Amino acid sequence: MRDFIFYNPTRIVFGRGKTSEIGELTAAYGSRILLVHGRESARKTGLLTKVIRSLAEAEVDVVESGGVKSNPVLSFARKAISLFRKTNREAVVAVGGGSVIDTAKTVAAGACYDGDAWDFYCGKAQVQKAVPVLAVLTLAATASEMNDGAVMTNEETGQKFSCGGDALFPKVSILDPENTFTVPLNYSMYGAVDAIVHLLESYFNATDPDTPLQDRFVEGLVQTIKESAEIIFREPHHYQARANLMWAATLGLNGLAPAGVGGEGYPMHMIEHALSALYDVPHGAGLGIVAPAWMRYQCYSAPQKIAQFGERIFGFRVGSPEEKAKKGIRALEIWLQSIGVPIRLQDIGIPLDDIAKIAANAEMNARRWKMEKYRIELIKAILSLATIPRC
Amino acid sequence: MRDFIFYNPTRIVFGRGKTSEIGELTAAYGSRILLVHGRESARKTGLLTKVIRSLAEAEVDVVESGGVKSNPVLSFARKAISLFRKTNREAVVAVGGGSVIDTAKTVAAGACYDGDAWDFYCGKAQVQKAVPVLAVLTLAATASEMNDGAVMTNEETGQKFSCGGDALFPKVSILDPENTFTVPLNYSMYGAVDAIVHLLESYFNATDPDTPLQDRFVEGLVQTIKESAEIIFREPHHYQARANLMWAATLGLNGLAPAGVGGEGYPMHMIEHALSALYDVPHGAGLGIVAPAWMRYQCYSAPQKIAQFGERIFGFRVGSPEEKAKKGIRALEIWLQSIGVPIRLQDIGIPLDDIAKIAANAEMNARRWKMEKYRIELIKAILSLATIPRC
Repeated sequence: MRDFIFYNPTRIVFGRGKTSEIGELTAAYGSRILLVHGRESARKTGLLTKVIRSLAEAEVDVVESGGVKSNPVLSFARKAISLFRKTNREAVVAVGGGSVIDTAKTVAAGACYDGDAWDFYCGKAQVQKAVPVLAVLTLAATASEMNDGAVMTNEETGQKFSCGGDALFPKVSILDPENTFTVPLNYSMYGAVDAIVHLLESYFNATDPDTPLQDRFVEGLVQTIKESAEIIFREPHHYQARANLMWAATLGLNGLAPAGVGGEGYPMHMIEHALSALYDVPHGAGLGIVAPAWMRYQCYSAPQKIAQFGERIFGFRVGSPEEKAKKGIRALEIWLQSIGVPIRLQDIGIPLDDIAKIAANAEMNARRWKMEKYRIELIKAILSLATIPRC
Repeated sequence: MRDFIFYNPTRIVFGRGKTSEIGELTAAYGSRILLVHGRESARKTGLLTKVIRSLAEAEVDVVESGGVKSNPVLSFARKAISLFRKTNREAVVAVGGGSVIDTAKTVAAGACYDGDAWDFYCGKAQVQKAVPVLAVLTLAATASEMNDGAVMTNEETGQKFSCGGDALFPKVSILDPENTFTVPLNYSMYGAVDAIVHLLESYFNATDPDTPLQDRFVEGLVQTIKESAEIIFREPHHYQARANLMWAATLGLNGLAPAGVGGEGYPMHMIEHALSALYDVPHGAGLGIVAPAWMRYQCYSAPQKIAQFGERIFGFRVGSPEEKAKKGIRALEIWLQSIGVPIRLQDIGIPLDDIAKIAANAEMNARRWKMEKYRIELIKAILSLATIPRC
């Protein structure tokens, strides 16, 4: 086990109908809040009305900032920060998935900072302070509801970067599985893929070869997410599957999986962020393409852990490590396709000629996070593996 | 999944040599602290000197309250509270295992309360406030270092009761596996048993029959604890095994395992507390006796989950649920004996005539925690199963 610090003070309120508690929970942190939400879905499903009613009952004054899109953009966050200040708010309530919560976090930190919020993302400033953030989650995927990170795209520079800091942990997150019933099926599946790949990042990139505790934690969550996604794909209103996926996705990036493994970054996410930044690909769809390709690359130098994945997740118990690893990757691809997730660049219409451009963008991420190994030629090679029709 | 609230704000600082950070970490919470520790071991090993030096370097003023015994007693805590007040302390630093940390928590809450600290344990008062507690852990077992609970024995009434409350979460706990190298082997093994039984309580007492995520979490930790204990039994200074056991035991009762399973209390602990209260049996040794007996009882009405335990932990894949369950229990007993843990009342010299007295004491616990099912006759029946030489 490597040395680590684990800290996660977010309070999770999990269960059917818990949305109605948002007012009372928010009132403990402020009586004037900015309500950040997405484009239309929370309004259409009646969730937004429910949240606003609960806030009103708790005498919390609401200013709305709606319209966050997936792959959230800096320009929106900047406007929301200015609205936050102008209307003298005390806290931010997010109603949505990771994009909305990440925007809320950017507003919460930006409102306490004299410079531009992008400074946190490009490394010019550290998040030191933020107003309280509370969240009502609508998509099981990013775990932003229980971590200290945020991701934002700067449309001017074409960069999708992330930032973090203790002040960004939401104070409270409400996880009501029924709020995910109406998520479109493709986005539900992309969310499951995002959660799985979060877990695999620390699993495959551990610097300690001997982490039985964390391995089992990851494997148990990946199995649960996989089973739950399969059930949801057939039956989108299945409460138990939605609940299991929701809690598993939250645990997938709340700091537990990497604690003690001494991880070497998030290369699959780092490469995918280039796809999202350049083509506005849904993040989970991009990961369906990048993850198997990266795993094939990783297989050349370090097949052991991929073999363990093949064995423990997909049941390949015979053969050499290389064989088990390759079978595992192929089984993952077949599984991704079975739930409608793309696995090759051409599946989402990205011309193969763009690989150099994508790799150059991904290299910016790699430099930002000091992942020295990932230079443009290597990233191009990995992306090329995401173009071969049948590996 | 059942509804739940999960909240755990303790900061874990894990790793080799982290003990030296206690001074700096403490200084953020106060400059005058009460240092609570056990009888001799922390002094003998030099750990106490290391802690005091680190506190001195951070200009933290120390008053010592040493001599906590395992199965910690109320009289000691009362004296420590009075010392805390008299010397105008701001925070409590615990150096020890669960008994020391539980005592520190009792002092921290008692110092903020006008009445007697036992009020928290007998249910007369709720813990509302406590001064900060920090811990340097020396025994992997109770997870008190990362939860909001404490257990205390009142020698006057012969009651071993527990209490809880958000204010009791330690602010920071240092988990330095090297600090557990010198724990006597029998206590190291009792600690492993305690951690395993914490996990099995929510696993076997879930009210939701369908909790794949929590099941896998528990099974992964139990397997890791089991493997680590076996290594430590042969090689007490094995860093990785000590590290895995330490983190697994902490995760074993930090609120994650029961989250969402809708558990029905901790009957094995409830019965064991009577043994500790009446005979000062080491808690983990008592659990080695009570757990298999309770599992045999549970097997009559609900063999399924015990069968799952037999299958996933001990590999019994064939036979009826009853057969797999019974094989699993017997395998657990054999394993406990293999690491020197008693499994029958007579193994620790308790006369079988005492069963009625033990059951009466356990019934007090059951009433305190509103576990209506556990009345004296049932508890006697369970304890009787802990006397049969070979089940």
